[in-house]
Amino acid sequence: MTTQRVHRIAVIPGDGIGTEVMPEGLRVLQAAAERFGIGLAFDHFDFACWPYYERHGQMLPDDWRERIGGHDAIFFGAVGWPAKIPDHVSLWGSLLQFRRAFDQYVNLRPARLMPGVRSPLVRRDGTPRAPGDIDMLIVRENTEGEYSSIGGRMFEGTERELVVQETVMTRHGVDRVLRYAFELARSRPRKHLTSATKSNGIAITMPYWDERVRAMAAAYPDVQVDQYHIDILTAHFVQRPEAFDVVVASNLFGDILSDLAPACTGTIGIAPSANLNPERRHPSLFEPVHGSAPDIAGRGIANPIGQIWSGALMLDFLGYRQAHDAILRAIEAVLDPAGGGPRTPDLGGHDRTTDVGRAVADAL
Amino acid sequence: MTTQRVHRIAVIPGDGIGTEVMPEGLRVLQAAAERFGIGLAFDHFDFACWPYYERHGQMLPDDWRERIGGHDAIFFGAVGWPAKIPDHVSLWGSLLQFRRAFDQYVNLRPARLMPGVRSPLVRRDGTPRAPGDIDMLIVRENTEGEYSSIGGRMFEGTERELVVQETVMTRHGVDRVLRYAFELARSRPRKHLTSATKSNGIAITMPYWDERVRAMAAAYPDVQVDQYHIDILTAHFVQRPEAFDVVVASNLFGDILSDLAPACTGTIGIAPSANLNPERRHPSLFEPVHGSAPDIAGRGIANPIGQIWSGALMLDFLGYRQAHDAILRAIEAVLDPAGGGPRTPDLGGHDRTTDVGRAVADAL
Ligand SMILES: CC(C)[C@H](C(=O)O)[C@@H](O)C(=O)O
Ligand SMILES: CC(C)[C@H](C(=O)O)[C@@H](O)C(=O)O
Repeated sequence: MTTQRVHRIAVIPGDGIGTEVMPEGLRVLQAAAERFGIGLAFDHFDFACWPYYERHGQMLPDDWRERIGGHDAIFFGAVGWPAKIPDHVSLWGSLLQFRRAFDQYVNLRPARLMPGVRSPLVRRDGTPRAPGDIDMLIVRENTEGEYSSIGGRMFEGTERELVVQETVMTRHGVDRVLRYAFELARSRPRKHLTSATKSNGIAITMPYWDERVRAMAAAYPDVQVDQYHIDILTAHFVQRPEAFDVVVASNLFGDILSDLAPACTGTIGIAPSANLNPERRHPSLFEPVHGSAPDIAGRGIANPIGQIWSGALMLDFLGYRQAHDAILRAIEAVLDPAGGGPRTPDLGGHDRTTDVGRAVADAL
Repeated sequence: MTTQRVHRIAVIPGDGIGTEVMPEGLRVLQAAAERFGIGLAFDHFDFACWPYYERHGQMLPDDWRERIGGHDAIFFGAVGWPAKIPDHVSLWGSLLQFRRAFDQYVNLRPARLMPGVRSPLVRRDGTPRAPGDIDMLIVRENTEGEYSSIGGRMFEGTERELVVQETVMTRHGVDRVLRYAFELARSRPRKHLTSATKSNGIAITMPYWDERVRAMAAAYPDVQVDQYHIDILTAHFVQRPEAFDVVVASNLFGDILSDLAPACTGTIGIAPSANLNPERRHPSLFEPVHGSAPDIAGRGIANPIGQIWSGALMLDFLGYRQAHDAILRAIEAVLDPAGGGPRTPDLGGHDRTTDVGRAVADAL
């Protein structure tokens, strides 16, 4: 018997539809592991969700770092049960905290128009957008910038009341995400990188971002770089999404672009995301872009493709590019109307979460 | 002879295509003034543009406040000749300075799908978007928020280098723009207001914004209010723009939404904007959303409709709603393909800036 490397995966389903799509994500991972001989061991954790909060009054156990910090990756569902836990408790108390604690400084989100999914966009001549028209990777700075926790309130409850919040960008923080983005752009056929800025309005931090982009560009003469202010960039996403390959942005701008881009591909319901610590000093986290979707939770009709695709990104990050590509092809095969595969209601079908998960696993 | 009230308008064409579209804006204003018996007197100013900067080393004369501060309105073209004046000089040295100095705390931008303009969006069933599908007003806070000028840099030129910039929101600043937005929503048939937030990530300033929205909403029980995080809101603009009526947002979020929304209507080339001091203590400023477009400047083919429409907003603000409506109908008549009116190249035509200006004036 040969000794196989076993990757330990922390599984955190979260709440809402997170608990429904997670089993399908795991089903496909298991199928891929078998087919490609990958060793995966799953440890399940019940925190970072509403039921845990209800029992314990906090989102995470005190020893959460010890319990998941030694894993090779975190496979996450969704969190955010509404109106029960305030947003800032549920998110800063889990997702955003993981990003910082595990120094997941890259948030990577592919936006790709898939077969069988209708884009809300048409081309300039009015014809439908087709797969290939939209195929970009959003690289978002994931630990600093506009999401700082420094600031506060003054003159509370009076007419003079005011609030202040800092945006903080460090050379360390900006350079490392830029380097990741430039390397990624270099590895792609088009070798094209777009930087999102707003240096004409946000006149202190954003010019610094631009400065670091210029400095980094000098080290990557083979990468073609352009730069747009975030306002007009959102317009370009809608008018000519084909112009973009890798897009790098600050924490806030990346957050916006990585919802807008998947929306342009027809549905954020199937978009995946990776929160990466590229040096692998800490576990990286993989999760669908969609939230916990309380409106459809409990009905078994959530689309599991975002979760499954996130699993593919995880395998890629762990070193299994082939397995990633195979899962992507399986997803495409199931989505392709020619194949008549199952579709959940968000894509106009009548099938269930489990039907889609099984179909993708079978197509592997 | 009856004494007519004469409104003194400061005219600042700017640079690039600003100087080409301005004469058409004035042509239509003059036609409307004649038809509706409105007294308009125009004073032309040659500052806030590249040529002025070249001669004087600054964007504005030292006495610019005295020279334009007493006017009833400012009619502005565009500024931003590229690569000659740094953005932060040209814009902070004119547009952004006007906004602050004249306390133009509301930036109002209509986004409306016009006849004869193709939206890059389709409906969920794949059919084209038609006029009526997109008809919203973006109300942007225009003086504070993310565009603060407080902050700086530390450890310059070293590995530890960092920059910090403050977002500042005051109760005074937030409440007055919200009040304007609520009043506007109340005056519209749908009475619907959407607030853009990001309180789940920007956890100090944005929850304050939300708090003020809730407080203001209590005074407007007839206005239906909803709220979206900016990331998903950009997705909704693309997927269901028909859902939005009045949208209120912070300085940065409003900047983004008021480029994205016109892009969804097919072209930001025709979108207008108003920078308002609603109390009329200072002049308000009216300008097209587009910039100075150096790539097409000097060729006489820029679309003047954004400038003309901005003139209509100015007349509305000065109290001439009828004249505003008449200009809008004239623009629609010229744009309507059924009428065979002139079209500039950006709308697929071969006509010139002046042709369109004349046609709108004639259609009045
Ligand atoms: C030019 C720039 C500073 C300005 C802004 O961001 O306010 C522009 O984008 C606008 O929307 O008027
Ligand atoms: C939930 C929220 C705090 C989060 C973010 O803004 O980062 C989400 O929108 C995301 O993109 O992962």
